[in-house]
Amino acid sequence: MTIFGLAQGEVTSLMTAVVGRELDQAAVTELFARATWSGITEPGDRVAGSVIAALDAAEALRALVENRPPEWWLAAARERGVDEYSLEDFENAVKRWAPRLDLSLSLVAVRQAARYAVKFLVPSDELWPESLNDLGDHAPLALWQRGSDDAVRALDRSFALVGARAATGYGEHITMEASAGLVDRGYAIVSGAAYGIDGMAHRAALASRGTTIAFLAGGVDRFYPSGHDALLTRIVESGVVLSELPCGSAPTKWRFLQRNRLIAAAGLATVVLEAGWRSGSLNTAGHAAHLARPLGAVPGPVTSAASAGCHRLIREYNAVCVTNPDEMAELAPLGDPALVPEMSRERPAATRVLDALSQTSPRRAEDIANRTGMSLVEAQSTLGLLELDGAVAERERGWVKKKL
Amino acid sequence: MTIFGLAQGEVTSLMTAVVGRELDQAAVTELFARATWSGITEPGDRVAGSVIAALDAAEALRALVENRPPEWWLAAARERGVDEYSLEDFENAVKRWAPRLDLSLSLVAVRQAARYAVKFLVPSDELWPESLNDLGDHAPLALWQRGSDDAVRALDRSFALVGARAATGYGEHITMEASAGLVDRGYAIVSGAAYGIDGMAHRAALASRGTTIAFLAGGVDRFYPSGHDALLTRIVESGVVLSELPCGSAPTKWRFLQRNRLIAAAGLATVVLEAGWRSGSLNTAGHAAHLARPLGAVPGPVTSAASAGCHRLIREYNAVCVTNPDEMAELAPLGDPALVPEMSRERPAATRVLDALSQTSPRRAEDIANRTGMSLVEAQSTLGLLELDGAVAERERGWVKKKL
Repeated sequence: MTIFGLAQGEVTSLMTAVVGRELDQAAVTELFARATWSGITEPGDRVAGSVIAALDAAEALRALVENRPPEWWLAAARERGVDEYSLEDFENAVKRWAPRLDLSLSLVAVRQAARYAVKFLVPSDELWPESLNDLGDHAPLALWQRGSDDAVRALDRSFALVGARAATGYGEHITMEASAGLVDRGYAIVSGAAYGIDGMAHRAALASRGTTIAFLAGGVDRFYPSGHDALLTRIVESGVVLSELPCGSAPTKWRFLQRNRLIAAAGLATVVLEAGWRSGSLNTAGHAAHLARPLGAVPGPVTSAASAGCHRLIREYNAVCVTNPDEMAELAPLGDPALVPEMSRERPAATRVLDALSQTSPRRAEDIANRTGMSLVEAQSTLGLLELDGAVAERERGWVKKKL
Repeated sequence: MTIFGLAQGEVTSLMTAVVGRELDQAAVTELFARATWSGITEPGDRVAGSVIAALDAAEALRALVENRPPEWWLAAARERGVDEYSLEDFENAVKRWAPRLDLSLSLVAVRQAARYAVKFLVPSDELWPESLNDLGDHAPLALWQRGSDDAVRALDRSFALVGARAATGYGEHITMEASAGLVDRGYAIVSGAAYGIDGMAHRAALASRGTTIAFLAGGVDRFYPSGHDALLTRIVESGVVLSELPCGSAPTKWRFLQRNRLIAAAGLATVVLEAGWRSGSLNTAGHAAHLARPLGAVPGPVTSAASAGCHRLIREYNAVCVTNPDEMAELAPLGDPALVPEMSRERPAATRVLDALSQTSPRRAEDIANRTGMSLVEAQSTLGLLELDGAVAERERGWVKKKL
């Protein structure tokens, strides 16, 4: 007996180990297929997300193994009510997926996961962080979890603290205050384990005996950056390190950008503590805005290039100027939802703007302002944030929604 | 022959000197009466402003000299179409004015003005800064001018740079950059000659051979603060020092607050460079917002108490976060009005909120948001700014417009 040509015994025992419970054969097949897909697709592959949600991972993987033509994928998707993709979309998708199909490599990744006591989480699990579902078709297919279940649960009361690798003493100081202050107020701290602001956010949370969660852009078996090996080891001990990529995956530029969407989606709110004019943390900010997550930025001296990105977020992208942990906590108060200020119940600007945009007809900012009932300035700043996130693009004749 | 019991010859020669042109007897009487009123009323006295606009200064002064009862004032005002004041308003007004009527003191003030080559400006003068008329009933009755006519004219392309007396090295540095940078871009610099930020704004403008204008809270013959004697003397040489109070008037707390309205009204835009949580410069910011003048604030380290007021303006009062002279200049671009961004042509939020408020029926912020079509957050921040300016007040059952 085999599963996709692999020895059933080993696949079953490995999947049982990484899932942490007894599984019947159908479940082993489905979960192994999903684990395989998490290595075939690049993070944020929308066609894969939709098709696997509609067909199940096992049936989709079987079709890939059997080399089905794009027409089959189109018909199978339409039959399940997924009709937003064209034949061309599937032609491109199969071209992306097929060359990366390697079931033995997938088995190696699961073996490595089992060796490092890494758990495999899928959206149907009780432990799955619901906040990630707000990513829709861009939600991860699965998560590889190295660390405690409680830390994964703490995502529902977490803050994302992000910023530049090239942090200043000022940036590290305010990050320490922010992280410790938010831990004191009952929040967990999410970040990306990079040097600079990210590292300080994790460290201060650990020092305050808080829960901290790191999202990596590669596999959780290989800590990146290597200089944060000791820090990530400590995070695993009391918190958790998560990735949507299987063990052995290398971080790439694309994966860093996509990892940022998980950081923005996982937290209740995102705060940028220090960021240069073109810092990658502005991309996380753009994701947060796209998801209608509250976004804060900490100002700094205007004479410091390391704060220019924060000022840009406040000036051009309507980020809230936050100067201490109390003001940060106001972005996403814990506790009685009736006490949450009215503003967070208003329909988010990003959603209104996306609804008013077309993928094909460019529309001017003035037109978007009219359609949404927003002021021109508000429409422009929301479009700017969505552009940072890659969700919209400006063409010669106006703005369009990007087909991702 | 006398003018209000004073020797006609001296009054005529003094008024000719301070006005700088030949005058007929009616003009001498009217201008001397207005100069006298500028010493009788406190800055911003709305009843005086309306009545003197309707009756002329000479007729109003004659009525005060002849001790007319409140009923006479009410009837005289109504006859000229001024019907917004009650008998009680005039009772209170006459009680304020009568004890301060001293024509010989007024003559002393004009004598002092002539001695210091101080000019007397009234709203009908070609040189009168039109921007002050936006203050409506709160516009000054007159201005006492010590310095150049060209500097008064430069108010039509000026920026108000204000901030705390207790400035830090950072605050002084950014003020120097702002003032010099705006001078380079063709703006004149308006401020209040106080220690700290104000002084640096004037000094940097002088050092850049720019035009600078200081509004004082007392008479222009007595420089305040005395430690800025040399600075104010230099401002008089190439710029101008202005006050709505006659020579000899002492600065008081009320007069400082009212002087701030002139600084906010005179400039095209106001920028707060450094300000503590309760700095007086927040009052200037409130005036600017009330007048729908663009308002900017420069962020600083969140660890510096001297920047807390700036962050408060950005956070709570929708001030634009500005980090360099280019961004400041964007608040009020010089040149072709067609190039001015759309936002500055939108109907200002402060005006919309004031129109939606009543003096008698308190209205909740939600109600104001509905009436103006603004979001609740925008309505609340605008109400907050108007409260700083003293234009609105929050009662138990909601917000009211204050009768000033």
